[in-house]
Amino acid sequence: MHDFNLWAPKAKKVQLQSGGNNYPMTGPDETGTWHLEMPEATCGLDYAYLLDDDPTAYPDPRSMCQPNDVHGCSRLYDQSLFCWSDQKWQAPPLAAAVIYELHIGTFSQEGTFDGAINHLDHLAQLGITHIEVMPIADWAGDRGWGYDGVALFAVSDSYGGPDGFKRFVDACHAKDMAVILDVVYNHFGPVGNYTTKFGPYLTEKHKTPWGAAVNFEEGGSDQVRRFFCDNAQMWLRDYHVDGLRLDAVHEFIDRSAINFMEQLSSEVERLSTNLGRKLVLIAESDLNDPKVVRPREAGGYGMDAQWSDDFHHSLFSLLYKGNPATGYYGDFGKVQDLAKALKHVFVYDGGYSKYRLHSHGRPVEGLSAQHFICFIQNHDQIGNRAKGERLEHLVGLDAAKVALGLTLMAPFIPMLFMGEEFASSSPFLYFAFHNEEKMAKLISEGRRKEFAAFGFEDQEIPDPADMSTFENSKLKWGEVHEGDHAHMLDWTQKLIALRRSTNALNDGDIHHMHVEYDADKRWLTMQRGPITTIINIGEAEVTLPLNGSAAVILRSRAEVEIRGDSITLAPMSLAVLNSEEK
Amino acid sequence: MHDFNLWAPKAKKVQLQSGGNNYPMTGPDETGTWHLEMPEATCGLDYAYLLDDDPTAYPDPRSMCQPNDVHGCSRLYDQSLFCWSDQKWQAPPLAAAVIYELHIGTFSQEGTFDGAINHLDHLAQLGITHIEVMPIADWAGDRGWGYDGVALFAVSDSYGGPDGFKRFVDACHAKDMAVILDVVYNHFGPVGNYTTKFGPYLTEKHKTPWGAAVNFEEGGSDQVRRFFCDNAQMWLRDYHVDGLRLDAVHEFIDRSAINFMEQLSSEVERLSTNLGRKLVLIAESDLNDPKVVRPREAGGYGMDAQWSDDFHHSLFSLLYKGNPATGYYGDFGKVQDLAKALKHVFVYDGGYSKYRLHSHGRPVEGLSAQHFICFIQNHDQIGNRAKGERLEHLVGLDAAKVALGLTLMAPFIPMLFMGEEFASSSPFLYFAFHNEEKMAKLISEGRRKEFAAFGFEDQEIPDPADMSTFENSKLKWGEVHEGDHAHMLDWTQKLIALRRSTNALNDGDIHHMHVEYDADKRWLTMQRGPITTIINIGEAEVTLPLNGSAAVILRSRAEVEIRGDSITLAPMSLAVLNSEEK
Repeated sequence: MHDFNLWAPKAKKVQLQSGGNNYPMTGPDETGTWHLEMPEATCGLDYAYLLDDDPTAYPDPRSMCQPNDVHGCSRLYDQSLFCWSDQKWQAPPLAAAVIYELHIGTFSQEGTFDGAINHLDHLAQLGITHIEVMPIADWAGDRGWGYDGVALFAVSDSYGGPDGFKRFVDACHAKDMAVILDVVYNHFGPVGNYTTKFGPYLTEKHKTPWGAAVNFEEGGSDQVRRFFCDNAQMWLRDYHVDGLRLDAVHEFIDRSAINFMEQLSSEVERLSTNLGRKLVLIAESDLNDPKVVRPREAGGYGMDAQWSDDFHHSLFSLLYKGNPATGYYGDFGKVQDLAKALKHVFVYDGGYSKYRLHSHGRPVEGLSAQHFICFIQNHDQIGNRAKGERLEHLVGLDAAKVALGLTLMAPFIPMLFMGEEFASSSPFLYFAFHNEEKMAKLISEGRRKEFAAFGFEDQEIPDPADMSTFENSKLKWGEVHEGDHAHMLDWTQKLIALRRSTNALNDGDIHHMHVEYDADKRWLTMQRGPITTIINIGEAEVTLPLNGSAAVILRSRAEVEIRGDSITLAPMSLAVLNSEEK
Repeated sequence: MHDFNLWAPKAKKVQLQSGGNNYPMTGPDETGTWHLEMPEATCGLDYAYLLDDDPTAYPDPRSMCQPNDVHGCSRLYDQSLFCWSDQKWQAPPLAAAVIYELHIGTFSQEGTFDGAINHLDHLAQLGITHIEVMPIADWAGDRGWGYDGVALFAVSDSYGGPDGFKRFVDACHAKDMAVILDVVYNHFGPVGNYTTKFGPYLTEKHKTPWGAAVNFEEGGSDQVRRFFCDNAQMWLRDYHVDGLRLDAVHEFIDRSAINFMEQLSSEVERLSTNLGRKLVLIAESDLNDPKVVRPREAGGYGMDAQWSDDFHHSLFSLLYKGNPATGYYGDFGKVQDLAKALKHVFVYDGGYSKYRLHSHGRPVEGLSAQHFICFIQNHDQIGNRAKGERLEHLVGLDAAKVALGLTLMAPFIPMLFMGEEFASSSPFLYFAFHNEEKMAKLISEGRRKEFAAFGFEDQEIPDPADMSTFENSKLKWGEVHEGDHAHMLDWTQKLIALRRSTNALNDGDIHHMHVEYDADKRWLTMQRGPITTIINIGEAEVTLPLNGSAAVILRSRAEVEIRGDSITLAPMSLAVLNSEEK
């Protein structure tokens, strides 16, 4: 027995097709929804929809399972059948989080949820509290980053389908790790998006980098917003996910008095209360606008946290000595940018951006740093390079250790990208294959053209459609305990252990934090209560006076020493000091 | 001696053309601006700009005078030469305002500022405190409503040019009336917009009803925002204008962390402090979003007030018995809508709008009614009808008296449209002529097509391009003291006098206001302190009990009487009572 509900406000006739039969649906009701009660329908039933006189049967926009890729029939899935073992689960607070971003397809050799489960012990031992999973909603084809999803309620079958994801979440919870899922509500993928056959999910009034914008403000937008809010609630409720990361919220174009993000955060708060466990929303935002994370009561959108790129850009620009600053890196490159990012979150908080050609951002006022996720590596900052080089491939291990050290000692919520903890030798390349040669060609050409502007030859750019591009991006777990990889893993583990065991490193306080630097000699100190982190990213040894007694509790290189009343740091090194006076 | 500054960020070469000579400009500087210091340039000099190798000389986007329509040369104008006589001027507070909207071209027979000055005594005697002038920025052609402006810093020559407007403002101030100017920052007119030759004033990323949106958020937007903010400041500073009415702010598309409206209100506040007189900003907003008028400190945009259509729509829908509710009127029509508009400002404060096909608005919380401008007639609500009928032409004088009475007794800031005070017999038609036959044809056809949907025949629709359409819209001042016109004028005068002399009618308090109604019998009472307004818009006489003693201080028809403990109102009548108990 199942109630089929389908939003198709413009249709004059809708039929459900299943097992060779067509069943007429009743509707549309006042919301534009069609209904069919089917006593014989049970979990596993394959079905699709026929609209008006169009002979093609389309998959359900809210399909929860697409066994034969996104173009085929939808399969009825019963959320209630899975046997969960996480009844007492409570996620650790986001404020105390160390997040680990991973891509299911390349995290394990198997490229599946079950494959990923095998490596959870490694993450738990590392001290990870939250695993952020790159999008798993079904897209056309077998491999991709996941941002091309079109069946947003279905879990990619290539990863293991709905039950596979549930096993993964359950296993994470069993090992005391929360799960954050990356969801894409700003566009649909370029292949297999049938939603527009059913209703005005998109609007031509606004353009985004992916074409027509999602319709958050025009006729029918109530149901479009319902679609995304219900999607969010499904992951949180039915898949026991602890939070969502919303992709590129700056591409939501919404002049409504109640912004989509505000609606979503308010619905998720209600769900959180109903479920009795804290759920979080994290926005990827390029707006440098604190409104995104301000409470709704204060006129904000009520997101729990947002990504902030400015810390990454300012730190990376200082470490990378390759080709001159291009693109957004042109806006960064000074030690004082890094100091500002640490102290004020946004380097661009109203100032003019040469890259953007306009003033950008707004000061963060009255918000703790715990509303901002920072990182020195993530899927974009690696994968959007022509050859998918990780930080350590570009700047070497010493610099990568300094960078990760500062990230983990900083007041923001830190996030690592899979493999960063052991300086993985695998690149993270851009791969996408939609089982469609024409689109594959378009994507490959687009990628080559994009990087030609930066002086790359065509043959240097791995083809996103090639199987090898995908395979080469997989982590090589064999290397974890070898040489530099083991050394980096040890460093990461120590940093995380220190962060998690030290109150002063988890208070999110930027107002009492003290940052000093020398722009020429390229050192910077960051004092958070009794803990002082010092980095020397210059080319010469640096000696700094110590105020009172202090002990080095972590050093990235052996050549960091306290001598009397001062501390000396070798080039490209980091030290963490604990001072008893404070 | 004059410094010419021109923003033309993409140009490789810019010359100023004047008196047959070309003068090369220096630039662009880091803002994209070109400069030329011309010692011999004085007020009255005609000039234009040559860009790169384009042989056409274009008028200055910031031209302050266009003596030969918007396509011709710009003429240098010296803001400092006018002799003002309003040195001690302070505008009355907006909270105590009675606004009068007028269109310079049709307000007087002459259709000029000087023609309008002749009728200021009439407005002063009426009790008007603020005159709102429909747009005067120069557009292509001689006649139009003004929303097709393209030379936004120039005053239309057909109205009397810059000095004419200054004479008008000075004369208003001399008669104790403030001036609010309607400005259009959401688009440029369809003919003669040369700004796009100079820089990215528009963006193709977003569509508005007039085409590409103004660029408030992309590359170059700092200078575009500067253009509009400087424009606003020019009117307020150099023309002594007391406030601006911003046309259709819902068509600003701006995801910037600092919204254009917020920037503008903050700059205008600074100017207000510098000039030592209060300046106000009023937004026309279709968003039903209190954020527009919330203080910036509370996450709002800091506009002083905004227009709210919901009061008009709910009241008009109750009075007009013509063809069934079409367009947005379909969302209204119940007495309880009117009660909600009075008590909560927005009828649509989050509910579903059948006209818009989505949920609309947000509750007004913690704001006084003095942030909302309401009216029962305005240029749009008359002129956007096929035949430009005024309210009284459609519903008769009794109903118009009730409507105006409720508007003036309501807690919002009331606004009248020119001629409303004497039930003018002139329609206010849609007229537009850009001295271009092709565009004239397009506009006429568009208008006919628009109204064909409502069942109008082509020949019924006055042609916007015809001179007679414009001439017929002029007020007939001869009729002011005749019959029904004189009667309406007397009614208006009494209402305004009562409002202005009664504290309780100016407190903007909606929290303590008491509204009661009977949806079937169609009466409604609105109690504000000791003043109670009762309307009977039903078809039968209505008798209501009185609580305690009260005196009728205003009645719209003679057939309103207190008999013992009750009051009886004839059909379509209004009474204002003063109760001593309160």
